[in-house]
Amino acid sequence: MNTEAVIGIDIGGTYTKIGVVDREGNLYYEDAVKTDKYDDPNAFVEALADLIQKFSHDNSKSLTIKGVGVGAPNANYYTGNVEFAPNLIWKGVIPFAEIFRSKFNVPVVLTNDANAAAIGEMIFGAAQNMQNFLMITLGTGLGSGLVVNGGVVYGYDGFAGELGHVCVKEKGRRCGCGKRGCLETYVSASGIKRTVFELLSSETDNSEFRDVPFSQLDSKQITLAANNGDKIARKAFDKTGKILGRALADTVAHISPEAIFLFGGLAMAGHWIFEPTKAAMEDNLLGIFRGKIDILPSGLLHKNIAVLGAAALIWKELE
Amino acid sequence: MNTEAVIGIDIGGTYTKIGVVDREGNLYYEDAVKTDKYDDPNAFVEALADLIQKFSHDNSKSLTIKGVGVGAPNANYYTGNVEFAPNLIWKGVIPFAEIFRSKFNVPVVLTNDANAAAIGEMIFGAAQNMQNFLMITLGTGLGSGLVVNGGVVYGYDGFAGELGHVCVKEKGRRCGCGKRGCLETYVSASGIKRTVFELLSSETDNSEFRDVPFSQLDSKQITLAANNGDKIARKAFDKTGKILGRALADTVAHISPEAIFLFGGLAMAGHWIFEPTKAAMEDNLLGIFRGKIDILPSGLLHKNIAVLGAAALIWKELE
Repeated sequence: MNTEAVIGIDIGGTYTKIGVVDREGNLYYEDAVKTDKYDDPNAFVEALADLIQKFSHDNSKSLTIKGVGVGAPNANYYTGNVEFAPNLIWKGVIPFAEIFRSKFNVPVVLTNDANAAAIGEMIFGAAQNMQNFLMITLGTGLGSGLVVNGGVVYGYDGFAGELGHVCVKEKGRRCGCGKRGCLETYVSASGIKRTVFELLSSETDNSEFRDVPFSQLDSKQITLAANNGDKIARKAFDKTGKILGRALADTVAHISPEAIFLFGGLAMAGHWIFEPTKAAMEDNLLGIFRGKIDILPSGLLHKNIAVLGAAALIWKELE
Repeated sequence: MNTEAVIGIDIGGTYTKIGVVDREGNLYYEDAVKTDKYDDPNAFVEALADLIQKFSHDNSKSLTIKGVGVGAPNANYYTGNVEFAPNLIWKGVIPFAEIFRSKFNVPVVLTNDANAAAIGEMIFGAAQNMQNFLMITLGTGLGSGLVVNGGVVYGYDGFAGELGHVCVKEKGRRCGCGKRGCLETYVSASGIKRTVFELLSSETDNSEFRDVPFSQLDSKQITLAANNGDKIARKAFDKTGKILGRALADTVAHISPEAIFLFGGLAMAGHWIFEPTKAAMEDNLLGIFRGKIDILPSGLLHKNIAVLGAAALIWKELE
């Protein structure tokens, strides 16, 4: 039997993941390449095309590839370009949709990784019956995908959903974007690390982090330390959740979502991050919104959400 | 010739405006009733129906009424109810869509006044070619209507677009909603009045407002005083615009609109409010959004936007 499938590609700063996914979200194949090994974006796409060709050749099942969906930082849905992505090796504007299209000869759609995650949640995950929800991805930075009336919010220019850069503190922490006080300087893997070091200076608690230099601290260690009763780690999660919850209350005032999904490394900390976030959001919500909005882990937590999201993006487009 | 028309109704705390509007936005008739004269919402709707009946009787032109659109505070598009509106005489949940429907026997749609203004701008005003924009209404409070992908954002529960209640200052001014630091406590007719009194205490400038008690100050006087060179009035506008612009930068990060419209009494202050707002928004925008977004006066500034917006709401629904 011939099965229709699409290619999902998630371009990250270090690794790019690729997979072949059918309409039900079954993953027939997955692989990865080192993104930063390819100075030339054409050579990079060539390498991905080679993987797919090898897979098609080896694969006994007959799959028809209907399209390619790509999630990438600073990817613009409207133009199909990746534009000035600070964390990718390629500078300037890269017309990835065009390059992929010329290589694969099928429809290609691009969006940023958080929007792809939101669509993945909508097509294959826990948001399958939701028309209005928010996806927050907590990685090195904070990404977000907004879904309103059943569609992703791209905005006028294709760059909507930059919640990592709402201001949560006037004259607050410096952000890589050039502004100060951006949400992601507090709420992200690097943000909570900064908070740990702020707490090491402001508090007197013993902590295992008093022996760790800034450059060596990894956000996973903060979860482990919280589990072990480390007070600085627990205070860091409380502070992080408090700031996130307060910011989410403002986002609720904008779009009134049914649910908010947290995804990514920091979300794996579970109740350490979910509980203070939920409490702070409720404290800051306008009365009419209180008690209505769930903060949930992604329904694709143990699956390859990045590749499934990119695949969902193109499935949604093909329909 | 028979012309198709709709009834637009704007329910305010003191007055309710009503009009008959054709598809091109021509207003055939307008009138108003005192809202707070009617303890019973049925009697209130009866009074409005009487006006329409009288108009139909007197009117030589043959108009067919196709529907009724209603803008009202705390009106819910999904339920057709006005729910717990603090500024209306009727308490609790009032099923206005149902009451209007039983009286007029045509389709009835309700939404809040700011959403109605946004739809009015989209159908009859300066946003006719826009798919993504924001309407801010600056009255006693601050209302907002968000348009994304060509549709109003109602959210999961019908209450999206409460930008008046995003938090702009932790432990800031007390708001009627029970929270503190809400945008509308700074940016609205009552917000700027509070700012004038804050400045009278913090600054030493002479000002005509040093002779005016709080209860007597009207926001129009602040515009007149700014025109006359009053430093406190000018500082009040600068501060108001700065806070609004900063908040708008965060809204842009959410939905990336093409334009932001300011409407209502405070927007009539013109450059006194538009200039500091625009400057502060630009200062706080993420790089990719800078220089792209217009802050504009409503295209219906000298028309009855409230009635036209309510009429546009039902026209949009009928199409």
